[in-house]
Amino acid sequence: MAGLKTLYEPNLDLENALHTNFDVDYVLDYRFATTSKAAAEEGFVKLIQALNDVGLSTEVRNGDNCAVLIFVKIASDRHLRAEVYRSRVQDWLYGIRTAAPEKEMQTNLNQEPITEAERLRLTYLLITKPRNEGGAGVTPKSGEWKGVESIFALHDHTFNKKWIKELAGKTFLGAKDLEEIKDKFGEKIAFYFAFLQSYFLFLIFPAGFGFGAWVLLGKFSPWYAIVNAFWCVFFVEYWKKQETDLAVQWGVRGVSKIQHKRPAFRHESVVKDPITGEDIKVYSPIKRLSRQLLQVPFALVSALVLGSLIAGCFAIEIFISEIYDGPFKTYLVFTPTVILTTVMPTLSAMLTGFAQKLTDVENYETQDAYEAAMVSKIFVLNFITSYLPIFLTAFVYVPFAQILVPHLDIFQIAVKPFAENEKQMTAPKVGFQINPDRLKKQVIYFTVTAQIVNFALEVVVPYVKRKVFKKVKEVKADRAAKRGGGAADPGADDHPEEAAFLVRVRNEAELNHYDVTTDFREMIIQFGYLSLFSVVWPLTAVSFFINNWIELRGDAVKIALETQRPVPWRADSIGPWLDALGFLAWLGSLTSAALVYLFTGDGLGPDGAPWSIKGWGLLLTMFFSEHIFLGIQLGVRKALSKIDSPGLQKERAERFLVRKQYISESMGQEAAEKAAAGGIEAGEKISRSTLEEEARQSTLKGHRTPEERFWQRQRVQAETIAVGRGFIARAAPNETKETKKEL
Amino acid sequence: MAGLKTLYEPNLDLENALHTNFDVDYVLDYRFATTSKAAAEEGFVKLIQALNDVGLSTEVRNGDNCAVLIFVKIASDRHLRAEVYRSRVQDWLYGIRTAAPEKEMQTNLNQEPITEAERLRLTYLLITKPRNEGGAGVTPKSGEWKGVESIFALHDHTFNKKWIKELAGKTFLGAKDLEEIKDKFGEKIAFYFAFLQSYFLFLIFPAGFGFGAWVLLGKFSPWYAIVNAFWCVFFVEYWKKQETDLAVQWGVRGVSKIQHKRPAFRHESVVKDPITGEDIKVYSPIKRLSRQLLQVPFALVSALVLGSLIAGCFAIEIFISEIYDGPFKTYLVFTPTVILTTVMPTLSAMLTGFAQKLTDVENYETQDAYEAAMVSKIFVLNFITSYLPIFLTAFVYVPFAQILVPHLDIFQIAVKPFAENEKQMTAPKVGFQINPDRLKKQVIYFTVTAQIVNFALEVVVPYVKRKVFKKVKEVKADRAAKRGGGAADPGADDHPEEAAFLVRVRNEAELNHYDVTTDFREMIIQFGYLSLFSVVWPLTAVSFFINNWIELRGDAVKIALETQRPVPWRADSIGPWLDALGFLAWLGSLTSAALVYLFTGDGLGPDGAPWSIKGWGLLLTMFFSEHIFLGIQLGVRKALSKIDSPGLQKERAERFLVRKQYISESMGQEAAEKAAAGGIEAGEKISRSTLEEEARQSTLKGHRTPEERFWQRQRVQAETIAVGRGFIARAAPNETKETKKEL
Repeated sequence: MAGLKTLYEPNLDLENALHTNFDVDYVLDYRFATTSKAAAEEGFVKLIQALNDVGLSTEVRNGDNCAVLIFVKIASDRHLRAEVYRSRVQDWLYGIRTAAPEKEMQTNLNQEPITEAERLRLTYLLITKPRNEGGAGVTPKSGEWKGVESIFALHDHTFNKKWIKELAGKTFLGAKDLEEIKDKFGEKIAFYFAFLQSYFLFLIFPAGFGFGAWVLLGKFSPWYAIVNAFWCVFFVEYWKKQETDLAVQWGVRGVSKIQHKRPAFRHESVVKDPITGEDIKVYSPIKRLSRQLLQVPFALVSALVLGSLIAGCFAIEIFISEIYDGPFKTYLVFTPTVILTTVMPTLSAMLTGFAQKLTDVENYETQDAYEAAMVSKIFVLNFITSYLPIFLTAFVYVPFAQILVPHLDIFQIAVKPFAENEKQMTAPKVGFQINPDRLKKQVIYFTVTAQIVNFALEVVVPYVKRKVFKKVKEVKADRAAKRGGGAADPGADDHPEEAAFLVRVRNEAELNHYDVTTDFREMIIQFGYLSLFSVVWPLTAVSFFINNWIELRGDAVKIALETQRPVPWRADSIGPWLDALGFLAWLGSLTSAALVYLFTGDGLGPDGAPWSIKGWGLLLTMFFSEHIFLGIQLGVRKALSKIDSPGLQKERAERFLVRKQYISESMGQEAAEKAAAGGIEAGEKISRSTLEEEARQSTLKGHRTPEERFWQRQRVQAETIAVGRGFIARAAPNETKETKKEL
Repeated sequence: MAGLKTLYEPNLDLENALHTNFDVDYVLDYRFATTSKAAAEEGFVKLIQALNDVGLSTEVRNGDNCAVLIFVKIASDRHLRAEVYRSRVQDWLYGIRTAAPEKEMQTNLNQEPITEAERLRLTYLLITKPRNEGGAGVTPKSGEWKGVESIFALHDHTFNKKWIKELAGKTFLGAKDLEEIKDKFGEKIAFYFAFLQSYFLFLIFPAGFGFGAWVLLGKFSPWYAIVNAFWCVFFVEYWKKQETDLAVQWGVRGVSKIQHKRPAFRHESVVKDPITGEDIKVYSPIKRLSRQLLQVPFALVSALVLGSLIAGCFAIEIFISEIYDGPFKTYLVFTPTVILTTVMPTLSAMLTGFAQKLTDVENYETQDAYEAAMVSKIFVLNFITSYLPIFLTAFVYVPFAQILVPHLDIFQIAVKPFAENEKQMTAPKVGFQINPDRLKKQVIYFTVTAQIVNFALEVVVPYVKRKVFKKVKEVKADRAAKRGGGAADPGADDHPEEAAFLVRVRNEAELNHYDVTTDFREMIIQFGYLSLFSVVWPLTAVSFFINNWIELRGDAVKIALETQRPVPWRADSIGPWLDALGFLAWLGSLTSAALVYLFTGDGLGPDGAPWSIKGWGLLLTMFFSEHIFLGIQLGVRKALSKIDSPGLQKERAERFLVRKQYISESMGQEAAEKAAAGGIEAGEKISRSTLEEEARQSTLKGHRTPEERFWQRQRVQAETIAVGRGFIARAAPNETKETKKEL
């Protein structure tokens, strides 16, 4: 792994700088390029005071381009410990921990050491929590803190290097690897890696089976479709279980109940909670619902805009590739691709921006609700851009090509300049042959080519971009230095001991935020291709299997080198993506059935036109497929719920411990209680002694109630037995009568 | 309500006997008619000893027909309190109670008095729990306790009388009424009444709307179908929420986690729990699964047997009523009814018995699992017997009558003796007209007639039966007394003060057990008619609304007078019936759509034959209906989850209390901690003081690490601010440069 080294800066000083973070927890990048000097200074002083007020130490250093870097750590170890303890008590109160943290802080912290993720999370919260909750209330880029460009933790490069080296060397991540990620980057990111890992492992089966199906069964095999649907269900249900299990193991189950308030939330009124007496900020749910309903027109408009773009390009492509027969065909065929690649990202970005505005307007109270709402909108957009092209080919082009293709003449205008005669541009009125390979080619494009392109855009391009920008910056700095002295160099004042470190920090300040949502989205959309369309090309899973091995490592490299160190948030699941997974698996049962039905034997009749499709046949196939799917889902869910798992075991163990402790605590008292009350072992003697006691008491009181008399007719066990024997002797059959005769 | 009195025994002595139970908790009916005297005595002694050993007082009295009655109560108040306390601690350990019971028993019991249901439940458990769990291990009718015919609590007739009087007087049950039922008969039965009450309330809407639809829209209205489906979803989802809410209010949420072991469970091996070290009895889940799979052939065979009986009778009925045209037609038409009413109950009982055996073989570990498995089998049987006839009419008779009816000639044999000529028995080869009213008539039969018949069978018949048996017994006793002295009269030895009471107890010993499952089943099946078929006859809900008003009172009378007092079990839901409800609501979306599609305009074409049905049209209708249903379900679920409820409020309040208490307990210590560590308020001074402390320490140590040096470059807040200001002054745009020039 010698090549890995070159990914890091080749500078020896920097190499050393990578070894220490000088105990810095967070760096605040304070920028003042657009504010007046006075305002900048005022803001700076306020910021330092706010940070000091909550018990954070600060150091300031010069930054790049009109910026200072404020270094922050928790002032003292005791303060940190108190924060950790407070957070653990809160967890216990919300039912996240079974066992109450020991009341003596020392014991608790010794038993369960503070992880780096825990420290960084709490420090971040200390900086950003509202003042009334005990934080400094610093919200980057908004309100009074507009100058704060970002708050980021410093990478632990020693760990990162080791980590990426390790990842490159092993095929599967173990529980320990995930634990390591969790302790460094927090549970939310660890869940992404855990998911990716499970998915990767699960892909082995469809990859193997898909390869077999590809060799033996060919395309559109119903057997493949059935096995694939079963696998999808099983994977989704397995992950559901795995997810809660991991949450239990990592001690974060139910952590989503502790929700972080969004600073941007605007309340309409303040209501006193009738129970707790706390003030609650309220926003009318009716109003929110009415705004949420805007999602429907949003989804429709998005579908319309993106859909017509896709459909248009699709039509042009068909026209050029299958009707047009003039010169430049080889080049013209790329026209739609060019249109798509230029227009689509812009349009997507626009719609995403619009989605964000919509989500802002919906005014969620908590960060989680906000993110979930955003994810659902992003999923809709991605669903359209990712799957619509294939849907069009499969369910519009193939069945209806013969009706639609003649109408594509409207695109003649596009190729008119190139065509030599009318005939080259005219669709044959009859006998148009659909291209049976189009669907397969498209699926291959989306499942192989697009994946590779994506990876390049995600990891390689940013790397190159960063290198180029760096060079440009250096050249600029050089030129500035030549022109006007050292003032332009932010590192001029740096203490030699820190210089290399500060260069590194200034570089990290320029990096982007890491957003795990993007990575999740990519994987979920990928799963969709497998569940919806892999029946077209059974090798899909093979491609994904290879891709995901690289993806996991690429994502690690991205986190370690190309983005700022993410804030280690906690999470107890992959959140709303789980619903998306379930939805895609379910939809897959419909599309696979439809594809199998439509394309049996290539989907072509003897004349090259699609074979005559029966509407009821198609619907019946889908109907059965869907219900078999739902049935299997129920079965798998039930079966999995019965299987024991490490998480469940841990939960049981914890509960047992609590019980044991409670019992041992109250044992002395309970045992005494037992002795006094006549425990279970004492038996006869007690029932006699208490009866005698009662008898004595009633004698003291002078007269007895009918109830007392009833219970004292047989005063001791022996009496009861004797009386009962008497009854039996008299009433018992056969022998009884004989006994009587003898008397 | 003077008439009510006559429901009770008219005897004045007995009337008085109704007022007291002599503090008896349970009565064990020990029978020895089939055992030898020695064995009977031995068993009796063992029983008394076992009961006394666990701290129960016993009294014995003579019973009817070779039986003794053993009266049981918990020996002392302290013992009872200890039991209650232990049970409440267990609840807390399982997370059913949020707040831990006070460690001082007295406080806890004073704060939360012991209800009658709690006392009776714990006493029952004391009698029946296995010995290793601290009970007497008495399992009626099995093993060494074969002589114990039943263990029953005595009715509180004063309450019962008041209760039935109250129920008769009011239309809707309030929260207090349900609470009362809960405190007397336990949560399980209270849940039944709560469900019945919610269902009754919810029926108001479809009753009103149905009546409107009946007047205005007629049969098979798609509007009715949509509204009805929506109502079904809403009801099911509402109940789901209501159910958890009630569980929280009643303090039993999660109580299903405390499961009672089935004494009949047979383990294969004993495994040591790796965590708790407890011995766990294990039965291979694979083996159980393989036995559970027998349910599939069971369901198929049941469907086949019951289905062919129903289909056969159905065919005969059609043949006679619509083809046969000879003499005795009016009487012969009842043949199938006679066959059904005689054969069906026998067959059902046989299959139910078989289902029970199957469930026994599945060898469940807990009572709950056993009951759930049984319920699912019973639901299958009832589904077939209740709905198949209508399914046959709607989906076989109407669409296919013209093809099938000519084949009904095989039934000629049945009517041959009566027919005068061949023609009377021959189906017309063409032009057979289906009877469009048949479906409606059938639905009316099941939703009106059958409900009334059911009620009669359930409440009236047992009452009459009991009266008759009583008379017979009295006559017999008289005769016996005349023949051979007083030995045959079990009441001969009774103490005059108790005589009336004992007569009452002997009567109660003869009563049946109350099984709430039967009542649930009835209501769920009723809901099915509404969801599946009410589009045929929109008045269905009106009939059910009236029926259920009576049903609720009838069930109360049944519990109070016609069965033994049920053991007040706890429950946190209506259990597996909820799944059945959901299933029926979902199936309703399919059947309603199909019915509407098939029967639009009476479902008849101009020639009296069904109009030409398009397969794809039918399937498309069902497909859309189902998915709209699923969509609505999702929406309703989401909307309801956002609504606050008394239960949720109670939960929040309890959690808040725990938090408050915890904080107040650890406040002293935490406050000290805070002061020492430099709390949030202390701010600047702390960060300075700790830094100085660190500086001093490092001076003491002799040399400082780079980290220490980094954090000590700016020793106090003022220094940080000054340095930062310097940076800003130099780098800030515009003004900065001006400042420089001035220098």
